Amino acid sequence: MSLLVTGSIGIDTVESPAGKVEDVLGGSSVYFAYAGSFFSPVRVIGVVGDDCPANFLKPLEDNPRIDLTGLEVREGAKTFRWHGRYHEDVNERETVAIELNVLSEVGPSIPDAFGDSGYIFLANTHPGLQMELLGQLTAPSLVVADTMDLWITTERDALMRLLKHIDALVLNDSEAKLLVDDRNVVAAGLKISEMVRRFVVVKKGEHGALLFTENRVAAFPGYPTLDVVDPTGAGDSFAGAMMGYLAAEDRTDLTTLRRAIAYGTVTASFVLEDFSLKRLLEITREDIEVRMKAFEKLTRF
Amino acid sequence: MSLLVTGSIGIDTVESPAGKVEDVLGGSSVYFAYAGSFFSPVRVIGVVGDDCPANFLKPLEDNPRIDLTGLEVREGAKTFRWHGRYHEDVNERETVAIELNVLSEVGPSIPDAFGDSGYIFLANTHPGLQMELLGQLTAPSLVVADTMDLWITTERDALMRLLKHIDALVLNDSEAKLLVDDRNVVAAGLKISEMVRRFVVVKKGEHGALLFTENRVAAFPGYPTLDVVDPTGAGDSFAGAMMGYLAAEDRTDLTTLRRAIAYGTVTASFVLEDFSLKRLLEITREDIEVRMKAFEKLTRF
Repeated sequence: MSLLVTGSIGIDTVESPAGKVEDVLGGSSVYFAYAGSFFSPVRVIGVVGDDCPANFLKPLEDNPRIDLTGLEVREGAKTFRWHGRYHEDVNERETVAIELNVLSEVGPSIPDAFGDSGYIFLANTHPGLQMELLGQLTAPSLVVADTMDLWITTERDALMRLLKHIDALVLNDSEAKLLVDDRNVVAAGLKISEMVRRFVVVKKGEHGALLFTENRVAAFPGYPTLDVVDPTGAGDSFAGAMMGYLAAEDRTDLTTLRRAIAYGTVTASFVLEDFSLKRLLEITREDIEVRMKAFEKLTRF
Repeated sequence: MSLLVTGSIGIDTVESPAGKVEDVLGGSSVYFAYAGSFFSPVRVIGVVGDDCPANFLKPLEDNPRIDLTGLEVREGAKTFRWHGRYHEDVNERETVAIELNVLSEVGPSIPDAFGDSGYIFLANTHPGLQMELLGQLTAPSLVVADTMDLWITTERDALMRLLKHIDALVLNDSEAKLLVDDRNVVAAGLKISEMVRRFVVVKKGEHGALLFTENRVAAFPGYPTLDVVDPTGAGDSFAGAMMGYLAAEDRTDLTTLRRAIAYGTVTASFVLEDFSLKRLLEITREDIEVRMKAFEKLTRF
């Protein structure tokens, strides 16, 4: 079943205790698409400016499973830029600089040919824009959205409207607590699962993830990782692998969902090991399968 | 196989967003013994002062699986007291007041009849005292110790000596990072596992636990808990159930260890649901088994 992602494509500068990279490929839909492509073809919807360097998107263009028909290169516009810094404790990061640029303009359109996409991921952006993009799809089978603290705080009404129209929400633990004003992450996840049609995935970084479906909880530890170089994109890669697996299986029952989250966890664990997309460009589906087997083994009791 | 615990018995005052209790039964060996008793008989070594109220230890005395032969009521001494306060985020706590009292005096002795104990848990106290207690045991099969940031910082040499003589260490994630000065909890756990004979368990509170054995890692999520009233004693109850299960099985192979950690996780999840030992006094082994089955189910993928 076809998988489509709408989200950002960005020029990132990242500093971490392991080093620094400047002007590298980043953005939610980039990580999502590359991680998802190990499991399923992915249609990417996004906009860059005409300042986007030649060959900048080569990793996506060279991937036969990534369809860039929905990529708009907007004349006179500038590409989204983000500069982040991770601290000694890589769980803490600060945004050094951000230039929304084209992301603050009118959003992309979904090509007619993509209107029939079945599995949809609305990566983090203004919930009004997420809603507008959703409106361009004719008959999605599973619509999943991401969001962030900024929209929870400043665009709560628009976000609440969006929640009624999506099947699932993926967000991190602090955002889940913020959304329903509950200090207990389990209580928060259960509450949010009643606000969407199907399920909620709460990401806890190195501590794994929780899945909430109709008053049921499933818990996943993180994949134990020694070499954390750059956590950027781990969450989007998690979502990409999860959705890629669901689209490939074309099932969303609880067993398939759990397996999808495990694949998301394992795929994201590679992304952390180097800057930008570097590790994803090195690995194959077989590497993911090897680590998936290790993950199964190290979580059994 | 016989299980013995050395640790504190205390008079606790606890405040949490859910309420306050004053002068209730607490202490590491108390939680450990009660949790362990669901799986195995437990021998308790500890000292209280003669100020200890009549009936204060009744929950232990009434439990036929807890042997208090090694309990010393010291004349002229005062019982250890602790007053703690949990914040809105119950993962954060502060010590409002602490009176070491008898804990700052000479330690307890292990009765001759207990010298042959096989499974030993040296709960958190000065590592010199842990070493001294260990010297009173003739042929332990498995010696596990707990420690804390205070001893890591102020008694590092004594702690390092102790590590050479024990099979395993149980400690929380911030303590593990502190002990080997490594920000990565997986790296820290692996390093510490080389400093003891057998294994390391790193407790991560609501985020579960990691087990390190000879360059291998196992990961466990926390049991998803809605009603966190008072986290006091959860870590000691975790250790008690873990050691109780190992002693009952009289095996410490990897499969048994993993199962022991899962039982520890599940047993600790009850303790949080009320103040002091209240929940442990209400439940049966059958309740633990029911939750263990739920834990198995919610962690499978």
